[in-house]
Amino acid sequence: MIDLSKEFAIGIDIGGTNTKYGIVNHRGEILEKGELKTDDYPEIEGYVDALYDALTPLIKQHVNGGTVKGIGIGAPNGNYYTGTIEYAPNLHWKGIIPLSKLMTAKFGLPSALTNDANAAAIGEMNYGAARGMRDFIIITLGTGVGSGIVANGQLILGHDGYAGELGHTVIRPGGRKHWSTQINGSVEAYCSATGIAITANEMLNESKEDSLLRQYGENLDSKIVYECAIKGDKIAQEVYRFTGQILGEALANFIMFSSPEAIVLFGGVIKAGDLIMNPTKEHMEKNLLPIFQNKVKLIFSELKEADAAILGASALVWEIRE
Amino acid sequence: MIDLSKEFAIGIDIGGTNTKYGIVNHRGEILEKGELKTDDYPEIEGYVDALYDALTPLIKQHVNGGTVKGIGIGAPNGNYYTGTIEYAPNLHWKGIIPLSKLMTAKFGLPSALTNDANAAAIGEMNYGAARGMRDFIIITLGTGVGSGIVANGQLILGHDGYAGELGHTVIRPGGRKHWSTQINGSVEAYCSATGIAITANEMLNESKEDSLLRQYGENLDSKIVYECAIKGDKIAQEVYRFTGQILGEALANFIMFSSPEAIVLFGGVIKAGDLIMNPTKEHMEKNLLPIFQNKVKLIFSELKEADAAILGASALVWEIRE
Repeated sequence: MIDLSKEFAIGIDIGGTNTKYGIVNHRGEILEKGELKTDDYPEIEGYVDALYDALTPLIKQHVNGGTVKGIGIGAPNGNYYTGTIEYAPNLHWKGIIPLSKLMTAKFGLPSALTNDANAAAIGEMNYGAARGMRDFIIITLGTGVGSGIVANGQLILGHDGYAGELGHTVIRPGGRKHWSTQINGSVEAYCSATGIAITANEMLNESKEDSLLRQYGENLDSKIVYECAIKGDKIAQEVYRFTGQILGEALANFIMFSSPEAIVLFGGVIKAGDLIMNPTKEHMEKNLLPIFQNKVKLIFSELKEADAAILGASALVWEIRE
Repeated sequence: MIDLSKEFAIGIDIGGTNTKYGIVNHRGEILEKGELKTDDYPEIEGYVDALYDALTPLIKQHVNGGTVKGIGIGAPNGNYYTGTIEYAPNLHWKGIIPLSKLMTAKFGLPSALTNDANAAAIGEMNYGAARGMRDFIIITLGTGVGSGIVANGQLILGHDGYAGELGHTVIRPGGRKHWSTQINGSVEAYCSATGIAITANEMLNESKEDSLLRQYGENLDSKIVYECAIKGDKIAQEVYRFTGQILGEALANFIMFSSPEAIVLFGGVIKAGDLIMNPTKEHMEKNLLPIFQNKVKLIFSELKEADAAILGASALVWEIRE
């Protein structure tokens, strides 16, 4: 019998600015973690070398007598089927990057890769708020809006690996144009941190009311909107009410697609707590058919944001079939 | 070895007015089919007896020396997990009807049941336009709009069996109120046969233009709109263009959810052919992220409408594990 306490996985979470990595055991404990600057490495080879140099001493120290089973990676535009990062707008490396293959060549270990939202979904399913669930959706509310969808206990990847782009679905046809995709009225245009700041600026322009928000000018961001809202600022509160309404309507649509047991909200925007939760829940329920009402748990992630993607990425390793 | 040519399944498609049934072999050939009036039987027991009386001679005649492996049923509001029909608005039988159990008791055969759109999806996957596909969506465009979603080669049923209610997702927030659900702006409110007739009436009221449609008054339905459109009637053509736009926008959202290889359109509304296909395709592509564009096949069902649900229902039988 294999002693699972002697098996380890490496989890890597690649962001546009920072890369976080950790050594994880079967219980989802991160034994040690570290960071490096993604954008210090204009060439992918240099980046892989830097990861190798950073991880080798950690492996020696912690794995002592055990086995590292492989490397799991969460990356923007990561494709599980091909192990490649494909045209990621926020990374230096352009085109199609065969990262999984490069990692295996350098480390001599099996490697698997998926996008960051899918990694977070796997983290929640294995160690977080979605433990034991076979049907749930995670929505990541950060600079952008991402999603990972689990049905029948499996990630939905689609025929090409690109499934789960719920942030780009349209919820206000003809509405706000997205700064990057140019699509009008997508969920991301409203419910991302970026969208929240845009909403705040629009509301300030349309109103003559006094507001704490007015002093920040170009520095206004979703964090400031949150801080002003809890101080009782009316416009800041209205920004969250409006954001929650749009998010709630979008979640109702998603529920009628895959009828999940829960929707897990994740990412920077959820720091606003009830300010975002209450209007989201209200408008979600309001837009559901009766057969779906008062059934779907709307919950916040239980994992530390910094850990979820490392844990999720590492959990990919346990699925690798050699 | 089992001789598959000697194995048969019974497929039953329950509609509000008619029930269609057939005896099907492993190659998807319907050896014989028949019909009875669903609404002749106010009590479910009488209905099950009538099915037994109708099917018994067929079984004797065709199964001669072989085995009937079981009964598969497609029914409105059919729940695969429980084998029950639950609160179907268009059926006489109210509440929760344990049809699968009743059939097994009467026939002495295993039985499985799902909703009609899921049955059609299974029919397309096994014998129709989606043969060999692991990721596709079927949209049924009839009196209502239904859907069956297949991902990773499996039907998405959701945690409670209710997944795939894409007709009730909202595509025009604050738009047309649905006659039955009271939800504003759902796909079904516009893209069903009922919705098409409403659009035609709205356009006639808003316009002073001459139109062939004006002579039909209250009898105006989607079939008449189609007939007038192919005769060159401007308003009738505009009805289909508008319907296709809304459907195309909705399909773009669905694609960003599960990234299917194909979307299969099914049901009475597709008789309009290019009149509905062309605007749907145009607006679907227009609303997709570039990574999804020009990849998803938008196709019409290849199965005769009368056969698809019988075939799909019968195919459920091959999945039953005894």
